[in-house]
Amino acid sequence: MSELSPSTFKELKSYLGGYVLVKLKGGKGIKGILRSYDQHLNLIVDNAEEIEGESTRALGLILIRGDNVVLISPASK
Amino acid sequence: MSELSPSTFKELKSYLGGYVLVKLKGGKGIKGILRSYDQHLNLIVDNAEEIEGESTRALGLILIRGDNVVLISPASK
Amino acid sequence: MSELSPSTFKELKSYLGGYVLVKLKGGKGIKGILRSYDQHLNLIVDNAEEIEGESTRALGLILIRGDNVVLISPASK
Amino acid sequence: MSELSPSTFKELKSYLGGYVLVKLKGGKGIKGILRSYDQHLNLIVDNAEEIEGESTRALGLILIRGDNVVLISPASK
Amino acid sequence: MSELSPSTFKELKSYLGGYVLVKLKGGKGIKGILRSYDQHLNLIVDNAEEIEGESTRALGLILIRGDNVVLISPASK
Amino acid sequence: MSELSPSTFKELKSYLGGYVLVKLKGGKGIKGILRSYDQHLNLIVDNAEEIEGESTRALGLILIRGDNVVLISPASK
Amino acid sequence: MSELSPSTFKELKSYLGGYVLVKLKGGKGIKGILRSYDQHLNLIVDNAEEIEGESTRALGLILIRGDNVVLISPASK
Repeated sequence: MSELSPSTFKELKSYLGGYVLVKLKGGKGIKGILRSYDQHLNLIVDNAEEIEGESTRALGLILIRGDNVVLISPASK
Repeated sequence: MSELSPSTFKELKSYLGGYVLVKLKGGKGIKGILRSYDQHLNLIVDNAEEIEGESTRALGLILIRGDNVVLISPASK
Repeated sequence: MSELSPSTFKELKSYLGGYVLVKLKGGKGIKGILRSYDQHLNLIVDNAEEIEGESTRALGLILIRGDNVVLISPASK
Repeated sequence: MSELSPSTFKELKSYLGGYVLVKLKGGKGIKGILRSYDQHLNLIVDNAEEIEGESTRALGLILIRGDNVVLISPASK
Repeated sequence: MSELSPSTFKELKSYLGGYVLVKLKGGKGIKGILRSYDQHLNLIVDNAEEIEGESTRALGLILIRGDNVVLISPASK
Repeated sequence: MSELSPSTFKELKSYLGGYVLVKLKGGKGIKGILRSYDQHLNLIVDNAEEIEGESTRALGLILIRGDNVVLISPASK
Repeated sequence: MSELSPSTFKELKSYLGGYVLVKLKGGKGIKGILRSYDQHLNLIVDNAEEIEGESTRALGLILIRGDNVVLISPASK
């Protein structure tokens, strides 16, 4: 049971190794380096920071469960 | 496990390459150029802007996870 | 994985080409001409207007993702 | 993928053709004549009225998507 | 696709014919006689009363959709 | 369609017959003796008490539907 | 029906035996030693503490149901 088609899966490859901003359900965001992802949109993000309004918090190397993801955008460090 | 029937999938083709407004669960919107989509309604949107009330924010080339989508409408730039 | 049985699917045919009011989860409504639908209740609605309380907003030809639909009723223009 | 077992499906037959009150997630109710239903609890309700607190609103012949249904009870006209 | 294993299914048999209190998502409760249930935890409850805080309301013979159920406990009349 | 892998299923055996605290979505808790569970995390809990903030309420022998469970921890009587 | 691909499953191995911070839907967090996990992201966490704002509460050896997990990050004791 995949939630990404093979074509969408490939599109995400261009994000690998770069900084991304991941918006989560509920309004928080995570910024960090996208290390890997799978077809359920589970993400391994390194140097991750949680962003909530103006405040940020370092989280390190994290796993994000795919069903919480709203969108992924490229980000600058 | 597809969430779009083949006929609905085809209907979306007319949106490709043009500006769309994507309304998300929770009330936010995304405006941008629809680059691709799949049968789960995952969307690749370029020149994306997040719209919340009167404020907008540039996001670039983004992936929207399909289960967050409420509706897609054509938009002007 | 269909969310409409064949019998319910057929019942919706009488709505095609006419104005419908689609109530969405979260309380908003969409009014427009039902152009097509599939077994997941994804809807293509033309001349669509978003209705929220007293205010309306023109959206054009839209796709509504089926899992947001609460109910569909016939509507006058 | 059915959400009603055959035995529960049969129990609903006694409601057909009579007035029912359908309670929906989020707190609203729908009263009307149950015309048909399927194994996903999608309902076709005629003479439907939306009930929210003390106010009611006529909706006509409607389709209710089954996953919004909390409960179904018999009702008087 | 069952949501009750056969062993859990059997455990519910002891509730049949007696008064139960069914707690629903969102905080309401239903009290009544458990007439039947299926493997999705859809319930037929007779003499049902909706309980919300201190107020109760008679509903008669109802069907509760299983995915709204939080818990079922025995109750006195 | 199981929601517990066989290894996680086995880990829960050590809780059987002892008092557990079950945290539910929405913030309530249930304390009682874990009598049985299945691979969907449906729980039969005896001597169950509902805990909400400082107040508790006796519920007896209950079934908790697995999809409401956030976590299970051992508890003292 | 797995919610972690084999590659993502392996990535979590580096967390085993160490302290992790698990963020849950709804805003709470759990800190403790990750003892095991499965492909649904069900977690067994030892020495678990619930964290809500500034307050913490000891929970012992707990099972967290995977569908409540937002993210997992390494943590110091």
